[in-house]
Amino acid sequence: MPPDRPGDVRDGERPGLPLQGQPDMGDDGERLARVALMRMAEAGDPVMGRLIARYGAEEALAQARRGVLAPEFVRDERELAQMSRRRTDLDQLVAGWAARRADSVADLSQGRERGARLIIPGDAEWPTQLDDLADTRPFGLWLDGRANLRFSCLRSVSIVGSRAATAYGTTVAAEFASGLGDRGWSVVSGGAYGIDGAAHRGALASQAATVVVLACGTDICYPSAHEELFRAVRSRGVVVSEWPPGAHPTRLRFLVRNRVIAALSRGTVVVQAAVRSGALNTATHASGLNRHLMAVPGPITAEASTGCHVLIRQGKAVCVTSVEEVVELVGAIGDDLAPERRGPVRPTDGLNEETRRVLEAIPARGPAGPAAIAVAAGVDLTTALGCLGALAAAGFVESVDRGWRLRRPDRR
Amino acid sequence: MPPDRPGDVRDGERPGLPLQGQPDMGDDGERLARVALMRMAEAGDPVMGRLIARYGAEEALAQARRGVLAPEFVRDERELAQMSRRRTDLDQLVAGWAARRADSVADLSQGRERGARLIIPGDAEWPTQLDDLADTRPFGLWLDGRANLRFSCLRSVSIVGSRAATAYGTTVAAEFASGLGDRGWSVVSGGAYGIDGAAHRGALASQAATVVVLACGTDICYPSAHEELFRAVRSRGVVVSEWPPGAHPTRLRFLVRNRVIAALSRGTVVVQAAVRSGALNTATHASGLNRHLMAVPGPITAEASTGCHVLIRQGKAVCVTSVEEVVELVGAIGDDLAPERRGPVRPTDGLNEETRRVLEAIPARGPAGPAAIAVAAGVDLTTALGCLGALAAAGFVESVDRGWRLRRPDRR
Repeated sequence: MPPDRPGDVRDGERPGLPLQGQPDMGDDGERLARVALMRMAEAGDPVMGRLIARYGAEEALAQARRGVLAPEFVRDERELAQMSRRRTDLDQLVAGWAARRADSVADLSQGRERGARLIIPGDAEWPTQLDDLADTRPFGLWLDGRANLRFSCLRSVSIVGSRAATAYGTTVAAEFASGLGDRGWSVVSGGAYGIDGAAHRGALASQAATVVVLACGTDICYPSAHEELFRAVRSRGVVVSEWPPGAHPTRLRFLVRNRVIAALSRGTVVVQAAVRSGALNTATHASGLNRHLMAVPGPITAEASTGCHVLIRQGKAVCVTSVEEVVELVGAIGDDLAPERRGPVRPTDGLNEETRRVLEAIPARGPAGPAAIAVAAGVDLTTALGCLGALAAAGFVESVDRGWRLRRPDRR
Repeated sequence: MPPDRPGDVRDGERPGLPLQGQPDMGDDGERLARVALMRMAEAGDPVMGRLIARYGAEEALAQARRGVLAPEFVRDERELAQMSRRRTDLDQLVAGWAARRADSVADLSQGRERGARLIIPGDAEWPTQLDDLADTRPFGLWLDGRANLRFSCLRSVSIVGSRAATAYGTTVAAEFASGLGDRGWSVVSGGAYGIDGAAHRGALASQAATVVVLACGTDICYPSAHEELFRAVRSRGVVVSEWPPGAHPTRLRFLVRNRVIAALSRGTVVVQAAVRSGALNTATHASGLNRHLMAVPGPITAEASTGCHVLIRQGKAVCVTSVEEVVELVGAIGDDLAPERRGPVRPTDGLNEETRRVLEAIPARGPAGPAAIAVAAGVDLTTALGCLGALAAAGFVESVDRGWRLRRPDRR
């Protein structure tokens, strides 16, 4: 982890502007402001999201601390309605922000002490598909795990479902997840009992990256019985949270979290869900975000699949019965990041052109120095170092004594 | 059963013209010809169907006996293609007809001795929805059972599926069938092991009429272990066949029979079917006939539901998970015979205006003579007698010493 450098503000950096090849980010004002706002506002609050989008995080923080919004922020009732607020609610909301204490430097050092890293929009590891969340885009994300979140999610599928799953459901979830892993796809889920846990385990079984999106701080293990599972995820995938270290899950946070599960991946598979399952909330987010929504059928004699059947009957979800059908769907369109290939799907398909050139410049045997790699790839040294850092986080390369070398996956 | 009257030809009778209120039909030339053609041509043969449609059954029989078609019958290659034939095939086909012996009077008396009755297009009991089969419409149908086929099928659903069904499949088939029976719908199926048998039993359990469409003569019990089941069907429903008495089932006949299962009802539910199941053949017929096609989902880990999932995924079948969903679909449109009611569905909803008036004219307590019923219903005596016969066959009324009275069903 890089040391904290709270005073290191980069000029010309704006939210949303990608900083390709800069994995070692300083703690500029934008970053510090976002960390503060993660404490002061509720995650996913569209008013705060809109405030940040309009004025930038630092000015949003200044207004939040004053407890008074810029007078022109809400121009008319239409804008209030877009944020699903009444004017009195808005005043209360902003007063609530001002009343909350936030110490960004302390949060950052606490998070990093506990092994997590913070990413914000514009960072190289930020998954740009989260921008689809618009005003409810996370202010920032805490990550804990060896995999690069952005690369892990380029070809990913969310697998969700009931905690109260049946043996049929957990079997299907694990088989889908490991089948996706075998085909170069990673699995995003919520780390819960039942379907979520089975999906993560299935992905790990196929040596694939898997992403756990928590409704609490990355240092909190919820459910506590999943401590071993989350440890395995951190070693091969990544644990994600939009709440600061030490934050505990609440009923509301589970629902708020679901939009991130839906947004990170190309599509969501609901394996089992009763009619009032939280997994249907994730399904609704997936549809709203124009992600592929899929549901697995099951026996009509059990409650556990009723929600899936409703989605299929209403035409909201595609009925999927095999991993091939899932891949056929999520791999077919929305391929802005990786052109569809006729050959087998490879994890490197998701890399951008520059990063792929750097990866290809690394000799097949033995390590190479960054300068030699930069020359071979035709990029400058800073870009090469940035790409190498990102490739390392994604598990493609590793840093050794005499430079960088390819890391051979046990199985792709 | 009425006695045979082979010479009794009614003038002005044409195929397709409904003969409302004439359940006691004589054996006119049309009828005798059709019985002969049921022996000479294969059931569902579109060439014979087209020949009958063009010239009537008697002239079709004359051409078949000569083994030479009228020269203008096949005007061009397009017409041959419509019948899926080449000219040499056609010559062979017609020669085959001429080579087969047929004795209509013997067939009719043999069938009737064995308790069956013959209906042909135009008879009061003929289900006019079979006309949708066009050139493959059955030449005639042998029926054995107390229920009126036409009335039984007005509000009916076909339930089909694999012989090699699982316990899940037979449970669902039986529950759907009895639930349909409780709501005034009858069930059509093929009388086979597995889903078919469970569907018939479910219908019988709810005291509803059920229709078995066989691929052999009504006097042949196939499968033989269903003797008891078919006996129960005859006492409350009806067993149907387009093959003459004594005909045995063949692989081809099962497939040919399936179009009748699909055509008789408002919609077909595939409960369980592997990808190569014969039930999918019935499903194809149902779609082709613009009937509602429905499929029940099941565990994706079992082969038994794979065919259902294919139908759902391809958008060919609606995914149904309850009886209510089936009724919602089949009851919603195609209601040319009975206007959609806001109240509960009643079996009498399917009766035509005249027949319903006759039914309503029968006193609630005690019997009434046919003349009194005719006056009360505002129809002439012949019409009243015809309607009463049809109502008796459908199980609504019964003939007693002093006239006709309502027959109270144990449960509707």
